Amino acid sequence: MLDFQFYSPTEFVFGKDTESRAGYYVRKYGGSKVLLHYGGNSAKKSGLLDRVKDSLSAEGIDFIELGGVQPNPRDTLVYEGIELCRREGIDFLLAVGGGSVIDSAKAIALGVPYDGDFWDFYSTEKRPAAALPVATVLTIAAAGSEGSGDSVITRTDGGFKRGAGSDLIRPKFSILNPALTCTLPAYQTACGATDIMAHVFERYFTNTPEVEITDRLCEAVLMTMVKETPRVIADPGNYDARANIMWAGMVAHNNIVGVGREQDWNSHGIEHELSALYDCAHGAGLAVIMPAWMEFVYKHNPMRFAQMAVRVFGCSMDFAHPENTALEGIRRFRQFLHSIGMPVNFAELGAREEDIPALVEKFGIGDGRTGGFVKLSAADITEIYRIAAHASLS
Amino acid sequence: MLDFQFYSPTEFVFGKDTESRAGYYVRKYGGSKVLLHYGGNSAKKSGLLDRVKDSLSAEGIDFIELGGVQPNPRDTLVYEGIELCRREGIDFLLAVGGGSVIDSAKAIALGVPYDGDFWDFYSTEKRPAAALPVATVLTIAAAGSEGSGDSVITRTDGGFKRGAGSDLIRPKFSILNPALTCTLPAYQTACGATDIMAHVFERYFTNTPEVEITDRLCEAVLMTMVKETPRVIADPGNYDARANIMWAGMVAHNNIVGVGREQDWNSHGIEHELSALYDCAHGAGLAVIMPAWMEFVYKHNPMRFAQMAVRVFGCSMDFAHPENTALEGIRRFRQFLHSIGMPVNFAELGAREEDIPALVEKFGIGDGRTGGFVKLSAADITEIYRIAAHASLS
Repeated sequence: MLDFQFYSPTEFVFGKDTESRAGYYVRKYGGSKVLLHYGGNSAKKSGLLDRVKDSLSAEGIDFIELGGVQPNPRDTLVYEGIELCRREGIDFLLAVGGGSVIDSAKAIALGVPYDGDFWDFYSTEKRPAAALPVATVLTIAAAGSEGSGDSVITRTDGGFKRGAGSDLIRPKFSILNPALTCTLPAYQTACGATDIMAHVFERYFTNTPEVEITDRLCEAVLMTMVKETPRVIADPGNYDARANIMWAGMVAHNNIVGVGREQDWNSHGIEHELSALYDCAHGAGLAVIMPAWMEFVYKHNPMRFAQMAVRVFGCSMDFAHPENTALEGIRRFRQFLHSIGMPVNFAELGAREEDIPALVEKFGIGDGRTGGFVKLSAADITEIYRIAAHASLS
Repeated sequence: MLDFQFYSPTEFVFGKDTESRAGYYVRKYGGSKVLLHYGGNSAKKSGLLDRVKDSLSAEGIDFIELGGVQPNPRDTLVYEGIELCRREGIDFLLAVGGGSVIDSAKAIALGVPYDGDFWDFYSTEKRPAAALPVATVLTIAAAGSEGSGDSVITRTDGGFKRGAGSDLIRPKFSILNPALTCTLPAYQTACGATDIMAHVFERYFTNTPEVEITDRLCEAVLMTMVKETPRVIADPGNYDARANIMWAGMVAHNNIVGVGREQDWNSHGIEHELSALYDCAHGAGLAVIMPAWMEFVYKHNPMRFAQMAVRVFGCSMDFAHPENTALEGIRRFRQFLHSIGMPVNFAELGAREEDIPALVEKFGIGDGRTGGFVKLSAADITEIYRIAAHASLS
């Protein structure tokens, strides 16, 4: 096990009607003038936004609104938010939405106290020194941003998608009401589930030996997703299955299952170019990329893939041919993703094989290599895109 | 799943030589005059205490010392610590030791800003409103106090052992260096492992349905302990196995595996009377009590015990007779505890059957009932002590 530091100070408030306590918690964490940040119309139509506003008003907390966050959140709205916060003297950011809204709020939080361009934290190794406090009311189990110190933003000029990370942008509190996710369409639900599983797999495939506790914790989250996701696809209003998935989504990404081990994250990076170019859902892109990545790298450590196959997907171990078990696990994962309505190849995703050179170019590693489990070159990434383009269930 | 709140703001600093950063972290969390709290001579002899002091001095942090914490920490030293802190203007408590030292520090932290008797928080439902900041340098994987808001203290006058809980006493930071545990005797190591497993079982046996994510997380910790504990008993200096156990001990008790579900905690309560009366190790007492409690309650929900048997101990499911699988799981647990050197009955623990009436009397529920999974009466607790008194491996 590697040395590590772990810090997850977010207060999680989980359960029915918990959004009505938003005002109480904003006050508890020192907010007096809030930017209420959200996406499209669903939070308005459902009445959620009104309930949150009522809760703020009941505590006498001032707020202004900035809606319009799009999936794959854009830098343009972040710049707008930073200006707005400075002009209005905002001291607290409350994101009401999913990962995109939360990530946008985190970017604004980093930008407000910073003299330069907030994009510095996303495009370079520059580390932030301060951030406004951020909190969330989560509406989809997916990104894990409600418990993480991460944020991913898309640069409109050029279509680059890049991430920043700092404990400074871990939410002060996150309100998780599984009932809010019961009205999500099946496709979005499945995209979220895929993202949750991908967050675990990015940590699971590691070269660090002797990490039994985090291996087992990773597998716990994956098995939960394998059990609960089909239930919510079949029965969207199943509160208990939604609740298990919602907490799994947080556990998958606040890093308690990933400490002390080298992680990978190439699948996320390779996917980001897809969602940046086609504006597809991140989870759908991952459904196409992650099994392709697995097929490309599994020979690096077939026993680790066999472990996943046996422990997570209940495959029988082929002791004479562990590679067969490894491949069977990958096959089961792809079948699982298909069963919940996810795409399995470029055509189903709406991506084009002829764009692969442009995707690799934007990935931008040149002659270098990147990743943890297997360090990939541009040629390797080209091959993974190609596998993803042609993948099938057979 | 039940509604819940989860808050674990402790910063964990995990790995080799991390105790040398104690001073840095005390400063980070605002300490300027520290009470260095510890137990007996082992921290002195090993040089650990000197390394921590050097680290504080290097940061220019003032400190005074209060050693002498005993296993099953006493109220008398807590009173002394409270007086000392007030007299010396202490603003930060640094516990260097295991659960006993940390729990003692937490009790002092609660007592210093409180006008009344700190014991109010342990003997009644009174909730604390303030506490001095506490931090830890952990020397044994066991109590999980390094990541919890709990503290257990023994009242010298009467031998009562009682607990208090509050997010106010969750440590600001906890330094976990697995190498510090490599010199622990096998018996203490095994007692710690038993306590870790018990912390999970107290959460695992629940009447709350639909808790797949926390079930799986509980099982992850238990499977890790089943794998790693025999390795450190056979090879005390195995850093990696020690590291897995140390992180498992934190995960087992900061409540991330226990949220959203009714918990039990009767085994801990029943054990506390044993360690209060005989001053035996808490883990050794749990090794005798927990399987006895299981045997007494398993018929309440045999399928939950069968799940534990199959998932944690790898038993084959007897689909025609799930109760047999349940009992096989309990048998395997007791055999496991025996295999790591734990006692299986009163005689091996040094307890006496004739004390059972006195133990039940001190437990103090009178005509009431207590617990989560099964609400036990005084007669039930008497029977559990009796099973524990006579238990064997057969």
